Amino acid sequence: MAVRVDLNISLDGFGTTTDQTPENPFGEDWGRLVAAYVATRTFQERVLHNTSGEGTTGVDDAYAEAYFEEVGAEIMGAGMFGLHTFPDDPDWRGWWGEEPPFHCPVFVLTNRARPSVSFANGTTFDFITASPHEALKRAIDAAGGQDVRIGGGLSTVRDFLQAGLVDRLHVAIAPILLGRGIRLWDDLRGLEEGYAVATETAESGVVHLTFRR
Amino acid sequence: MAVRVDLNISLDGFGTTTDQTPENPFGEDWGRLVAAYVATRTFQERVLHNTSGEGTTGVDDAYAEAYFEEVGAEIMGAGMFGLHTFPDDPDWRGWWGEEPPFHCPVFVLTNRARPSVSFANGTTFDFITASPHEALKRAIDAAGGQDVRIGGGLSTVRDFLQAGLVDRLHVAIAPILLGRGIRLWDDLRGLEEGYAVATETAESGVVHLTFRR
Repeated sequence: MAVRVDLNISLDGFGTTTDQTPENPFGEDWGRLVAAYVATRTFQERVLHNTSGEGTTGVDDAYAEAYFEEVGAEIMGAGMFGLHTFPDDPDWRGWWGEEPPFHCPVFVLTNRARPSVSFANGTTFDFITASPHEALKRAIDAAGGQDVRIGGGLSTVRDFLQAGLVDRLHVAIAPILLGRGIRLWDDLRGLEEGYAVATETAESGVVHLTFRR
Repeated sequence: MAVRVDLNISLDGFGTTTDQTPENPFGEDWGRLVAAYVATRTFQERVLHNTSGEGTTGVDDAYAEAYFEEVGAEIMGAGMFGLHTFPDDPDWRGWWGEEPPFHCPVFVLTNRARPSVSFANGTTFDFITASPHEALKRAIDAAGGQDVRIGGGLSTVRDFLQAGLVDRLHVAIAPILLGRGIRLWDDLRGLEEGYAVATETAESGVVHLTFRR
């Protein structure tokens, strides 16, 4: 059992983009940040349900496969689920439609109680008010011996990193400079202590960097 | 002939450290940032004049060798030469003692006129007031067909990058989080356009990333 984080960031460290508009709700930057990941065969199959066999099959795809393996529960912040965008919609069920790509219990950290949401593919969302330690304990109990992922957003990930709760941090660094957004690395001085670091470069130019303890 | 930049940065993008004290004039962070580079056999020989044959000989050393090859002239900011630290010392001749590791004409950008300084090993420092374009023209004339390096500091490098004057940008990214200092990547959104990117990981964990056009 490991507590894992997987993120896409730009060379200048931005992991959340902030150029969303009503006309372009994901923003231009987000597409550039995750382009190599979206292009993988695994993402095409697992998230976009594109079963044509299209998609890259190199280093990026190997990381994409590993991304979906052995995760038994996930923790995410309220913003990642959409509660900051749609705070007053009691029917909001997340961004992912009827096939959310989690297939496991997901714990959403929020200060406002909310009924759980379940999907036929095994994804459930439970809304809990908890410290990182408490939330992790619940997720470990739910994960049945498999890994727990801290899914995001960045402030949630930083809370768990700063609490020393993350065993494996994988960042896919896109070789682009966004110049705007929210930085992953703020307030994490010395994080590397206690971790071994490994890096690998994909055909796309993306650098996969992993801190592991 | 290419216009080159070579820098050491941390994973969180800091290329200038700011923890210098009178007792520790380089600071703790600087030593960590350049540790893998200083450990190379090439740095040991070329900068520290350690002829014992000590030093690493892997990927970091290959980049260190390339660092010293084919540079015919260098441009640096006043701060890198030390003019901000010792503004009123007419006898200041730089940080590097009697063997500055340049062996070529160096143009120091400053608004205050100052007599040139020469060293027996071929290094000369000329103090010029010039725009990036003008300074580059002088350096190209002095380089005799070899490359021109923009040496630093970061604000000088950013000026040349933003003016579109750099052909090759090599950053050695140390897998550490400093959390403080001056960031290289500020205000460089979209820099990657027009460049091909290549990355290579050294035995030390340092990621060597090169933008080349």
